Amino acid sequence: MPAKPRTGRTPGSPDNRQAILDAAGAQFAELGYDRATIRGIARAAGVDPALVYHYFGSKHRLFADTMELPVSPADILPDVLAGDRETVAWRLLTAVLGVWEEALPGQSRVAAVLRSSVTHEQSAAMLREFLTSQVLGRLTRALGDDRPELRASLAASQMVGLAMSRYVLKIEPLASAAPEELVPLYAPVVQHYLTGPLGELPSRARHTEPVS
Amino acid sequence: MPAKPRTGRTPGSPDNRQAILDAAGAQFAELGYDRATIRGIARAAGVDPALVYHYFGSKHRLFADTMELPVSPADILPDVLAGDRETVAWRLLTAVLGVWEEALPGQSRVAAVLRSSVTHEQSAAMLREFLTSQVLGRLTRALGDDRPELRASLAASQMVGLAMSRYVLKIEPLASAAPEELVPLYAPVVQHYLTGPLGELPSRARHTEPVS
Repeated sequence: MPAKPRTGRTPGSPDNRQAILDAAGAQFAELGYDRATIRGIARAAGVDPALVYHYFGSKHRLFADTMELPVSPADILPDVLAGDRETVAWRLLTAVLGVWEEALPGQSRVAAVLRSSVTHEQSAAMLREFLTSQVLGRLTRALGDDRPELRASLAASQMVGLAMSRYVLKIEPLASAAPEELVPLYAPVVQHYLTGPLGELPSRARHTEPVS
Repeated sequence: MPAKPRTGRTPGSPDNRQAILDAAGAQFAELGYDRATIRGIARAAGVDPALVYHYFGSKHRLFADTMELPVSPADILPDVLAGDRETVAWRLLTAVLGVWEEALPGQSRVAAVLRSSVTHEQSAAMLREFLTSQVLGRLTRALGDDRPELRASLAASQMVGLAMSRYVLKIEPLASAAPEELVPLYAPVVQHYLTGPLGELPSRARHTEPVS
């Protein structure tokens, strides 16, 4: 790499990578996938566009990395799967809402993912892949119930609907509720999709027993 | 109105209004609210832009009218509310999926609503208003259970999530399922939100005071 003036951040610094991710999250959120540019993201991050390509290779890959939020599924799933399978949805929602809320300020990461997925087929495909293969499909296959793909897609539809309603449509009282208030409202339903008898009402017994 | 050459459609013809709505639905779906133009919609509909303003007054109003889909809530709700309250979600989902599917080909109306709502704050506000005040809020208030606003928002989040997953993200097997397969999968959950015992939540009184 050519010599550069010494600054607090050097081209290879992890700070630069994070600065690019932060800028990308903000730009994708504000502009959507199509209108966000590597050049604009690099400018916002205070780096050369070549460094964005160096780290991420392409806008597509950069978006995929911004979409993974502060924590990757690989980090979350073991904890979600550890413990009673009848309370797996409580742990899943607690972890996912934690990630979503951590991605604040501006709810930019979550809104960015949704905005890009709705306006760009490639992003929709990425989110679909992310939700089903990477997160919920891995979860339902690990849980071992019947129809894991259907269960993953049903749970995905409720998670996406919660994110849309809270962060994009801002429907009250969901938008202002604290995460710890949302978990007991949604966990019974997500649990029902993951392990319950599909086509029947969510069990009353199950959803009154939050995790200790 | 000035004399015009005789054609199949005259300026005042209801066919023109429908042609404009059809074109608007397609353009909003393809381009989103911001990039769709009255001029482009008029061109696609084969009418003069002045006629679009004559019928709808503004792009905002045109979008509102395209969003109302083939059937208005006023047409649906009486039938949904008629009958056993413990099966209201089955009738709701059957009616709503009927409207969504009727809006095909191209799933353009449903996708248009979501696309515009995600990319445009005004459209998000319109969809929020539509879902909560016009449809689900009227339903939960009519059903008379506690916390009607919270129940409406929970049900809205699942309906929005289903629409996103089926029509935008195209998550399988939801995307290819027949409406009559989806109703029994979702109705128990929507029913739970509308009339069931919501999860235990010590601080819930903060958000919605129970209706007497």
